[in-house]
Amino acid sequence: MFEIISLQNGIDNVRGFYSNATDAGLKNTGNDLAFIKSDLLCDISAVFTTNRFAAAPIKHFKKYPKDFQTNFILINSKNANAMTSKEGIEDIEDILEYAKQKDNSITHPLMSSTGVIGYRLPKEKIKKGLDKFDFSTKDSNATANAILTTDTFKKELCFKVILEDKKEFFIAAICKGAGMINPAMATMLCFIVTDANIPKNDMNELLKNAVDNSFNKISVDGDTSTNDTVMLLSNKKSGAYDKDAFKTALEMLTKELALLILKDGEGSNKVVAFEVKNAASLNDAKKASTSLSNSLLVKTALFGEDPNWGRIGSTIGASGIECDEDKLTISYDDLIVYKNGKNIMDKEIEKKAIKILKQESFKITCDLGIGNFSDIAYGCDLSYEYVKINADYRT
Amino acid sequence: MFEIISLQNGIDNVRGFYSNATDAGLKNTGNDLAFIKSDLLCDISAVFTTNRFAAAPIKHFKKYPKDFQTNFILINSKNANAMTSKEGIEDIEDILEYAKQKDNSITHPLMSSTGVIGYRLPKEKIKKGLDKFDFSTKDSNATANAILTTDTFKKELCFKVILEDKKEFFIAAICKGAGMINPAMATMLCFIVTDANIPKNDMNELLKNAVDNSFNKISVDGDTSTNDTVMLLSNKKSGAYDKDAFKTALEMLTKELALLILKDGEGSNKVVAFEVKNAASLNDAKKASTSLSNSLLVKTALFGEDPNWGRIGSTIGASGIECDEDKLTISYDDLIVYKNGKNIMDKEIEKKAIKILKQESFKITCDLGIGNFSDIAYGCDLSYEYVKINADYRT
Repeated sequence: MFEIISLQNGIDNVRGFYSNATDAGLKNTGNDLAFIKSDLLCDISAVFTTNRFAAAPIKHFKKYPKDFQTNFILINSKNANAMTSKEGIEDIEDILEYAKQKDNSITHPLMSSTGVIGYRLPKEKIKKGLDKFDFSTKDSNATANAILTTDTFKKELCFKVILEDKKEFFIAAICKGAGMINPAMATMLCFIVTDANIPKNDMNELLKNAVDNSFNKISVDGDTSTNDTVMLLSNKKSGAYDKDAFKTALEMLTKELALLILKDGEGSNKVVAFEVKNAASLNDAKKASTSLSNSLLVKTALFGEDPNWGRIGSTIGASGIECDEDKLTISYDDLIVYKNGKNIMDKEIEKKAIKILKQESFKITCDLGIGNFSDIAYGCDLSYEYVKINADYRT
Repeated sequence: MFEIISLQNGIDNVRGFYSNATDAGLKNTGNDLAFIKSDLLCDISAVFTTNRFAAAPIKHFKKYPKDFQTNFILINSKNANAMTSKEGIEDIEDILEYAKQKDNSITHPLMSSTGVIGYRLPKEKIKKGLDKFDFSTKDSNATANAILTTDTFKKELCFKVILEDKKEFFIAAICKGAGMINPAMATMLCFIVTDANIPKNDMNELLKNAVDNSFNKISVDGDTSTNDTVMLLSNKKSGAYDKDAFKTALEMLTKELALLILKDGEGSNKVVAFEVKNAASLNDAKKASTSLSNSLLVKTALFGEDPNWGRIGSTIGASGIECDEDKLTISYDDLIVYKNGKNIMDKEIEKKAIKILKQESFKITCDLGIGNFSDIAYGCDLSYEYVKINADYRT
C-alpha cells in the first residue's frame, strides 16, 4: 500500500534539486534560459525523438559514456539547435564548458533546446544568461515557464509518494509541447526529477513504458520533431523506493502531462479519446486509433462540433486494417450512431450527439466486431487558430 | 508523329457520347444528377479507392461479369452512398432498373456518387430526376458542374488527337475533387470517354499508369475517401488508334486534371511540387515526397509564405527514410537555402525565398545526396478556409 499526494510548486519539492530561469534575450520578451541542478550526482534515463535529424543536444547527450551520471541540465527555448551539423554540438560543448568554469561541481552537463530549426545558438547571449544564475535557488514555476514555445500555459506537476513504512519520496516534472505532437512524442521536452532511491534498470524500464502509454499516445498534428526529449533524473536523496509505487506515480505524471499537452495543442479546444475495440490484432487497433487521432477531416469535424461519423468510418476504412462495415459500431461516448452497416442517427440522436461534441472532452469508440484487441489514442480538434499559429511561427 | 489539340466543351466533342444534368433536389440549389451515355456499347476500365469501406456504387460495379460492356453512367452529388451496407447496393439496382425501363437500350448501367457518407440515397428524388433526362442531348458543361461538391470550379478537358495517317480520335474527361485528396486518389470522381479504337488490354494498362502518375501523386489533406473512382470508357467509334498517341493524351489529361484538383484543394491558394532527389531507393524517394505533401506544418508554412525550411528538413527526418543532414540540400525553385548541414539563408536569400513562396506554384527540392532515386509529389497549402469548409461540411 502506498499513498500519492499531488503538490504545488513542481520541482521545488524534490530534495536536492534546484532550478531557475532568466531572460537571455532569445525570445522577444520573457525568460528563455533555464537550468535544473542537483546537489548529488544523478542517474539518468532518456527517451528521444525517432526523427533522423535528431537535434544537436540529443547527439551531444549520446557522446557521453553509457550509464554516465549528471547533475546539470541547461535548457533554452526559441532556438532548437537542430540541423546545425557538428557546429551545433560544438556550440553546446563551448557553452557547457563555460558553465563548468562558473561552478566546478558541474559534471557531465546536458543541454536541451526547443524552437526554430536550422539556426546556430546565440552562444554569447546564452553565456551572459548563465552569468545571471544562482544555482542554489529554487523556482520551478519560472523554469516551467521559460521552456515554453507556442504553449499557452505551463505544465508542472509534483507527487509526494508515501510508502507503507512511512518513508516518502518526491517525483516532479516540467514539460513543454503544443503543436507538432505526434504519436511519436514530438516537439516536446519533459524533465522528470525524483529523490526516490530507484535503481538505474528500473528507471530505463519504467520510463520507456510510461512514455509509450502517455506521450506516444497523443497527436496534435501528426508531425514528429527533431528535439523530442523525455528525461528522468534521480539523485536517490530520499533513500525511499518501491517499484510499484514509483511506476504508478510515474504513469500518473506522464499521462497527466500528455493530456495537458493535448489540451494546449495549438489552437485546440477539445481533447478526444479515440478507442478502437475488438480489432483483429493489437497492431490493427493501434493503426486505426492513430489514424483517427491524425485525420484532418475528423479533426475539423470535431472543431465544427458536427457528428459527421462518416468521416470516422471512412478513416477506419482507409487505415489499412481488417474491417467490415457490417460489423462496425461507432459511438460518441455511450451514444451509438452507426451499428452493423446502418446509420441510426435520427434527429433525436443527432441532438444528443451534438451535445456530446460540445463537451471539452469525450470519447469516440469504433467497435470493429472482429477480434479481441483494443487501443486508445488521444487527439484534439483542428481550428483556425492552429493554421494561424503555424503560418506565422518564426515571426 | 501525332498532334494533340485542346478543345472546349469536354465530352460534347466525343463521337457517340451524350451527357447532361438536372436538379433532382439533392443539393439545396443547382444540378446534382447527371448521366453519361454512349450510343455504342463501351469497353470500360476503372481504378477505385483503396478504402476498405468502398462505397455501394463500387461494390455494384464489381458485381458485373469481368469485361462487361456498358453504355450508361448515372452520377449524383451530395450523397456518397457509402457505409450503407447491402441496402446501398439494392438502392442502386432499383434506380438503374428504373432507368432501363425508360430506355431499353441501356446495358449494364453504372452509378457513381459523391457527398456525405452514411445516408441512403433518396431514390424517389433520383427517379424523378431521371424522368427529366433526354438521353440524346449533349451538355458536358452542365454535367461537369453537377458532379461537384466543395469544388469551386468545374474540371473538364478535351483533346483531339490527329494521327500520322490523318485519322483522328477524341478523348475527354470531367472530374471532381477538392478536399480529402490523398496520394491514394481520394474523394475524386473522374470520367474519361474516348472514341479511340483502343483494345481493352491497353485501356487497363494505360489507365493504371496514368492514375499512378497523376491522381496518386497529389495530396490535399492526406485522407482517403470511400468513393474515389476513375473510369475510362471507349466506344471505338472513330476507328482510329495509336498506343503512343493515346498514352500521351491520356497522361496529359490526367496530369492536368490532377493539378486542377490540387489548385481547387479546399481553401488552398498554392500548388507546390515536392521533389526528392538522390534517395537511396525509389521507395524512400516516394515516402519522403509524400510526407512533405501531407505535412500540416509544411502546409501551414506555405500558407504563411514563410521560408521555414526547418520544417521541410524535419519532415524528411521524420519520414523514416535513409538520410543524413550533412548530405542534404533544400531549395525553393533554384534557390538553395540549406546545404550539407548548413543554413545558408541570409537576409538576401530569405527575401528571394519569400518572393518564390508568394507565387501560385513553385517547387521545393530536397536533394538527399545519397543514391540515385527521385520522385515528385504535389501538394497545396493549408488555410483557414480549409478548416472552415470542413468544420461545416454537412450543413
